Amino acid sequence: MSLLETINSPNDIKKIDPQDYRKLAKEIRTFLVQKVSKTGGHLASNLGVVELTMALHLFLDLPDDKLVWDVGHQAYTHKLLTGRRQDFDSLRQYEGISGFPKTSESDCDSFNTGHSSTSISVADGIARARDLKHEKYKVVAVIGDGALSGGMAYEALNNAGRIKSNMMIVLNDNNMSISENVGGMASYLGRIRTSSKYTVLKTKVERFLDRIPFIGPKIVRAIKKSKNSIKALVVPGMFFENMGVTYIGPIDGHNIDLMLKTFKSASELDGPVLIHVITQKGKGYKFAENDPSKYHGVGPFDCSTGRSTSVKDGRTYTEVFSSKICQLGRNNKNIVTVTAAMADGTGLSAFKKHFPERFFDVGIAEEHAVTFAAGMASRGLHPVVAIYSTFLQRAYDQIIHDVALGALPVTFAIDRAGIVGNDGETHQGIFDLSFLSHVPGLLVMAPKNANELEDMLEFACSYDGPSAIRYPRGKATEKLSDFRAPIVKGKSEIIKRGHDAALFGVGRMVKVLDEIAAELSEEYGYSFTIVNARFVSPIDYECLDEIAKECDIIFTCEENVERGGYGEAVAMHLLKSGYTGSFTDLALPDQYIVQGTPNQLRDSLEFDPVSLKNRIKKTVDVHKNYDII
Amino acid sequence: MSLLETINSPNDIKKIDPQDYRKLAKEIRTFLVQKVSKTGGHLASNLGVVELTMALHLFLDLPDDKLVWDVGHQAYTHKLLTGRRQDFDSLRQYEGISGFPKTSESDCDSFNTGHSSTSISVADGIARARDLKHEKYKVVAVIGDGALSGGMAYEALNNAGRIKSNMMIVLNDNNMSISENVGGMASYLGRIRTSSKYTVLKTKVERFLDRIPFIGPKIVRAIKKSKNSIKALVVPGMFFENMGVTYIGPIDGHNIDLMLKTFKSASELDGPVLIHVITQKGKGYKFAENDPSKYHGVGPFDCSTGRSTSVKDGRTYTEVFSSKICQLGRNNKNIVTVTAAMADGTGLSAFKKHFPERFFDVGIAEEHAVTFAAGMASRGLHPVVAIYSTFLQRAYDQIIHDVALGALPVTFAIDRAGIVGNDGETHQGIFDLSFLSHVPGLLVMAPKNANELEDMLEFACSYDGPSAIRYPRGKATEKLSDFRAPIVKGKSEIIKRGHDAALFGVGRMVKVLDEIAAELSEEYGYSFTIVNARFVSPIDYECLDEIAKECDIIFTCEENVERGGYGEAVAMHLLKSGYTGSFTDLALPDQYIVQGTPNQLRDSLEFDPVSLKNRIKKTVDVHKNYDII
Repeated sequence: MSLLETINSPNDIKKIDPQDYRKLAKEIRTFLVQKVSKTGGHLASNLGVVELTMALHLFLDLPDDKLVWDVGHQAYTHKLLTGRRQDFDSLRQYEGISGFPKTSESDCDSFNTGHSSTSISVADGIARARDLKHEKYKVVAVIGDGALSGGMAYEALNNAGRIKSNMMIVLNDNNMSISENVGGMASYLGRIRTSSKYTVLKTKVERFLDRIPFIGPKIVRAIKKSKNSIKALVVPGMFFENMGVTYIGPIDGHNIDLMLKTFKSASELDGPVLIHVITQKGKGYKFAENDPSKYHGVGPFDCSTGRSTSVKDGRTYTEVFSSKICQLGRNNKNIVTVTAAMADGTGLSAFKKHFPERFFDVGIAEEHAVTFAAGMASRGLHPVVAIYSTFLQRAYDQIIHDVALGALPVTFAIDRAGIVGNDGETHQGIFDLSFLSHVPGLLVMAPKNANELEDMLEFACSYDGPSAIRYPRGKATEKLSDFRAPIVKGKSEIIKRGHDAALFGVGRMVKVLDEIAAELSEEYGYSFTIVNARFVSPIDYECLDEIAKECDIIFTCEENVERGGYGEAVAMHLLKSGYTGSFTDLALPDQYIVQGTPNQLRDSLEFDPVSLKNRIKKTVDVHKNYDII
Repeated sequence: MSLLETINSPNDIKKIDPQDYRKLAKEIRTFLVQKVSKTGGHLASNLGVVELTMALHLFLDLPDDKLVWDVGHQAYTHKLLTGRRQDFDSLRQYEGISGFPKTSESDCDSFNTGHSSTSISVADGIARARDLKHEKYKVVAVIGDGALSGGMAYEALNNAGRIKSNMMIVLNDNNMSISENVGGMASYLGRIRTSSKYTVLKTKVERFLDRIPFIGPKIVRAIKKSKNSIKALVVPGMFFENMGVTYIGPIDGHNIDLMLKTFKSASELDGPVLIHVITQKGKGYKFAENDPSKYHGVGPFDCSTGRSTSVKDGRTYTEVFSSKICQLGRNNKNIVTVTAAMADGTGLSAFKKHFPERFFDVGIAEEHAVTFAAGMASRGLHPVVAIYSTFLQRAYDQIIHDVALGALPVTFAIDRAGIVGNDGETHQGIFDLSFLSHVPGLLVMAPKNANELEDMLEFACSYDGPSAIRYPRGKATEKLSDFRAPIVKGKSEIIKRGHDAALFGVGRMVKVLDEIAAELSEEYGYSFTIVNARFVSPIDYECLDEIAKECDIIFTCEENVERGGYGEAVAMHLLKSGYTGSFTDLALPDQYIVQGTPNQLRDSLEFDPVSLKNRIKKTVDVHKNYDII
């Protein structure tokens, strides 16, 4: 029996002989590589925190103590050590275990996470609640150096510095967010890391200094002797100390004994303590060590070669965006691009390569990304800000207040809109039409196919005002390529005319509706009008009125929640203008959507082509009094 | 002629004899106190930056150079010095000059602002645009110490630290945001301020050190000699230096010569430079000096006594909230409250006084406020987060991701919802129903009067899930107090039954509709059904269906933009359920709303009672084929 097999519930790791920790770590890595190679998932970050997680589990009593993972994609070892080993075949699969902490999955998962930079705020809240309720347990937040570029983390540090209650923040520093790390904080941490002195320094912890095998007061003397006194003042951790948080570190994040001793000593200190732990992303799997960015989030791959086993199936929308923005950038020197730590994911890497001086990766900092773009736009540039739908939620106020209010020419390229899949609730892009459509003056578009994404991007980049284009994850359809009428602000595109019903589709749904219509035509002889909405804001009411005059059965279809989406605005207009026919809004239900492949999720929500076809047919049959076949 | 009268266009200040700067500053203060005492406005912060603004205007060439004010409420002297003196009688009035920078008002206003912590992002964007376009001008951001608690400012500093292009950040440190400042950063700045050494310290600026009348290398020697070396390492500005931003300061923000010299020298340095300037909020007007918080934003007052001249006219919604939350807090120890630098404005000061240990002011940090509350809610507390509607936009993602996803019992008390008034576009609370209603599982309520706010708050605090209550600025109506049916989740309240039309009102509109109905009844004999929606999410479809069965003219009325609001959801339901009567959505247009008193603005938008009455009557007349009277 392997060591790992002896770990079947929380705290079982405490029964392991310390001499076997290395062996266990190795088993965990092998297990993770094997499982993730089949299910896909976040690999490199998980390989990096095996020993850190083991040390935390040895230190804490779960579920009494509360462990909050930032983002949470690095919690696989945590799941392994809390009795979920048997579930790993279902990792990130429909109805399986989540790739993120989920309170519904285990009482050792203290908070649902997915977005970045929230853990210190959460831990601060938990620690205050504990103290107010006179309870006793430990609270630990684990945050990566990448997540530290997010403003929320700073806001939380700023507030944590005020509390007297105990709370530990483990800074898991692997010098990477998803791709490389950026900004002053990153180079600050870099200076600490490369200072070649693994040090622990703080008056309060002087006693503590003797207990761990590193220098202490020596460093102070070293500073005094230093040639350049001012440079030497860059003492490890002063940044955090200045915020009122006790700093300890940096220490080796692959040395369990050391971490355990450090955690124990740190927990004796009053107030919030930050422990700076250095880990290697991808550790123990050479392909991931060599290219941690590639193995940050992966699909299924071959363990022995590290190569992806998923079959490439045509261009993705991301790729379409990627080439088109490069082409536009070549012709227009005023186009600049901005990403929040997602150059690869958003497809901006190519632009970065071709036009490095016009590419800006601001780190995990969506708010700054948007307002920084607004600043550039105010002085004659046309920024294209590429952020996933779910992460753009972070910059809602900046879109309203800094971009749209000034009518500034910023284009939002919103990838991963609609159902995204295996990352689950926290990553679906199902709210963007609802939070963008009411922003005054912001054009909101969705392309029906690859060509149209290109055309919309070109249109947006020549439009002197704010615009947003939302497009889904995955393969870009090339269908309906014959329909390529020029993009005109606020104008829909009529694909087909028919007499039984009108189908208004947003983005990817246009193709789905067209196929459904073709089937219903062939099978039952129905004939449909099909409209490609193109613009969700402003809505093409003229087109709507025209169709509504001819047609007494109208459907809208969008991969967004119903509330605040396209269908509602259409319904409002129809009702106000006296339309008395049938209306059906085919949209996602107003709820969070779990994990699974996009198609599994669409099936489960009756939003797959077959269900949609049935819903459409049934409605038409009822309203036309056709014989129900 | 006064000195001030000689300043009629940008750069006129440069003609003033430096010996007269103090005199001019005095004239400006007198002018500001006099004008603001009549119009109301932000006083204390403006009095604090008179000399700073003068120094900046002496240093810069406007409008070629770009000056970005954070928040922007402190830009009155800037407006005075750029040819807008004559317009100050109209400050913050309908069709007058704005209380904030407005690009439409002057080309010396480089960016529209209003919300906090955006200036460094904007300036960073402008500086990059300048360099990419090979232009030459100076870029300066002025940010208060309060705004530095916002995460965006940190994100921007983190990114500014990477650039090589020149940019100046003036940290206007008055040790206050709106009320007192909080957090690690604040106490860090406090330590710098009180270190009794006004110092300028940086290797790069060694030459510079000799030019200004303060110590330089001495401080380094002082540190070496210091008893407690580690404490001494708290050197001014290391925080910023660690971020990659050159730090200079702190310097006296009321000494124009010194600031001017410092700005000039700083502008010769490469990369971003932060100049830490100490100012006194309210300076020169004793009432404001003594109570800067009270004079942060004021209504009209008597100059000689400092007393408000506005007449108190019954309880405001803020006051109703304030007493009720104290009462609830007394009975339920699990209720905690959170504000983002707005204890006075939101009415939480009373709670703070009674239950200091259960009150949390996190500084200007709405994102952290919400997720911190989520953390507390996850461990058995019931946080009430009081944030103005417009500022809650900052925490949209946190509401979705950290509160509602976990179905956590957090209540949002959303003051200043709807039309807010004189602060203009950036402060209206007109989007909240649109950005909250689609959040899964979040109850969204609006009270019709004072009692109902109390009842809803009580209901929300006993509800085991997320909830939001939005209520307007100003006086809380006591009307309709006879209607006090218990709050039931998702249930509307029927106020009156009639047969001509049904009016569904949200929040304050219920009373307005009731009065309109009474008038139309008296004048024309019409009879209306009046429904108090109470819940905008979930909507009471049962009630809607019941009314729609009896009634073929339906109105909804809400003080929110139309798109994504209550009316749209009602329209969608009516249309889907086959309603073929008349429907009218009385809502605010989908646009930004300028400044003015709420009633002026309602008039201009035809959203005042008279216009609404006419719109309702006309619609009823048309549909009933009544004689048009």
